[in-house]
Amino acid sequence: MFLGRVVGQVWATVKSPDLEGKRLLVVEALDERREPGAPKVTPVVAADPLGADVGQHVLVAFGKAARVACGGDGDFALEAAIVGIVDDFDIPGAPASWRVDLQREDA
Amino acid sequence: MFLGRVVGQVWATVKSPDLEGKRLLVVEALDERREPGAPKVTPVVAADPLGADVGQHVLVAFGKAARVACGGDGDFALEAAIVGIVDDFDIPGAPASWRVDLQREDA
Amino acid sequence: MFLGRVVGQVWATVKSPDLEGKRLLVVEALDERREPGAPKVTPVVAADPLGADVGQHVLVAFGKAARVACGGDGDFALEAAIVGIVDDFDIPGAPASWRVDLQREDA
Amino acid sequence: MFLGRVVGQVWATVKSPDLEGKRLLVVEALDERREPGAPKVTPVVAADPLGADVGQHVLVAFGKAARVACGGDGDFALEAAIVGIVDDFDIPGAPASWRVDLQREDA
Amino acid sequence: MFLGRVVGQVWATVKSPDLEGKRLLVVEALDERREPGAPKVTPVVAADPLGADVGQHVLVAFGKAARVACGGDGDFALEAAIVGIVDDFDIPGAPASWRVDLQREDA
Repeated sequence: MFLGRVVGQVWATVKSPDLEGKRLLVVEALDERREPGAPKVTPVVAADPLGADVGQHVLVAFGKAARVACGGDGDFALEAAIVGIVDDFDIPGAPASWRVDLQREDA
Repeated sequence: MFLGRVVGQVWATVKSPDLEGKRLLVVEALDERREPGAPKVTPVVAADPLGADVGQHVLVAFGKAARVACGGDGDFALEAAIVGIVDDFDIPGAPASWRVDLQREDA
Repeated sequence: MFLGRVVGQVWATVKSPDLEGKRLLVVEALDERREPGAPKVTPVVAADPLGADVGQHVLVAFGKAARVACGGDGDFALEAAIVGIVDDFDIPGAPASWRVDLQREDA
Repeated sequence: MFLGRVVGQVWATVKSPDLEGKRLLVVEALDERREPGAPKVTPVVAADPLGADVGQHVLVAFGKAARVACGGDGDFALEAAIVGIVDDFDIPGAPASWRVDLQREDA
Repeated sequence: MFLGRVVGQVWATVKSPDLEGKRLLVVEALDERREPGAPKVTPVVAADPLGADVGQHVLVAFGKAARVACGGDGDFALEAAIVGIVDDFDIPGAPASWRVDLQREDA
């Protein structure tokens, strides 16, 4: 699982039936090597069963964990999903930019 | 899953029987670090059950998700597949180059 | 599995039910290319069934291994977990910085 | 799956019983960032159920797909296999070096 | 699977019960970009059911393959294992440094 920020959304009309009705969000991992606003690097597209918004911090899981998070029996045609909307984190030494848009700015 | 663009096709006569009759497309992930026309980096080869064309934007899934997308019981000898043909995306701050060839240019 | 150091913790109120009650730690892999205190690179978020503390060295596993480590039947919505708290390691040539905070400094 | 070129072979006497009798080939992904003859980067070792030769272009799959390709029930102790020997590919803009050793040079 | 060299060992008293009694070796992939003695990059920790020694060349597998190699039913809390001790390899163009410590120096 990784800690990222929702940076966008994707729409597809022609898609695997398992993806019908699922929000597909674009999530970028937090990475100290990059400044906010810097070029984005291959963001992940994750199904969102939790209702996250652009700008929110989230946890993303891959593989079977992602399918389980979407409520199925593990046989969905998806392999990345948001499994948590992050309220706060405590990572001593992390750059201030990581906290931009964090829900609990005062935490 | 990742957001990419179909950049080509591959043909193999000698192959795992599970790949018989499947279109094998070459997909490159969108990545802000690269300009269009720049050298390609290890593109993914994905089975295509949806009929995507070169130039189209697609979602690619790995592992069991890919096998499910191809209609099987999860025991195919393939581990990457196109699970969606992208109509449009909204990623504030993404480079204009990402929208090249996008179906809905005016979105 | 990789050898890392716990660098923080994450909290999420809205999350996949499988993550209820689980500590979510942020773990960074040891990497000789980086000096201690250097910018962090995409740390992993791992469930912690063992009670590791910030600063401790740990082993992290992914996928089904992570779910098994958390005591379930492999169907949890998580895909990274701490599977060992490292007492010591012997890696000739590893930088001294890797041993910072190691439990057995005198080993 | 990725598109690569067979660059060598590996032999192991002491090995997991599931690997007995299996050819183990070393495959390097095509990557525009590298010139032919440039230093190799962490090549993959893949079981070869198809009889590929050094220099041939191949498709490599990971995980369960690789085990299925080797004819088993998915419980082999291997996680990479050659699933196709590539005759030809059409990737507009790919460097000429990618076609070196390709079976159908005139395609 | 990848081709690496055993560079060390790790010990953990507090660990997932599935790891009890298992040797945990640190393995670094061969990579032409690095010279011997250069800084190590995020080495993998792999369970060793074969009895490999530091300095030996090995094949490492991930995921279910690793669990099968360790003799279980695939439900172990580990996801990397040594599946072969390499006697020799033939990779034309590979740097001489790759053969350091290789069992069959004269091969």
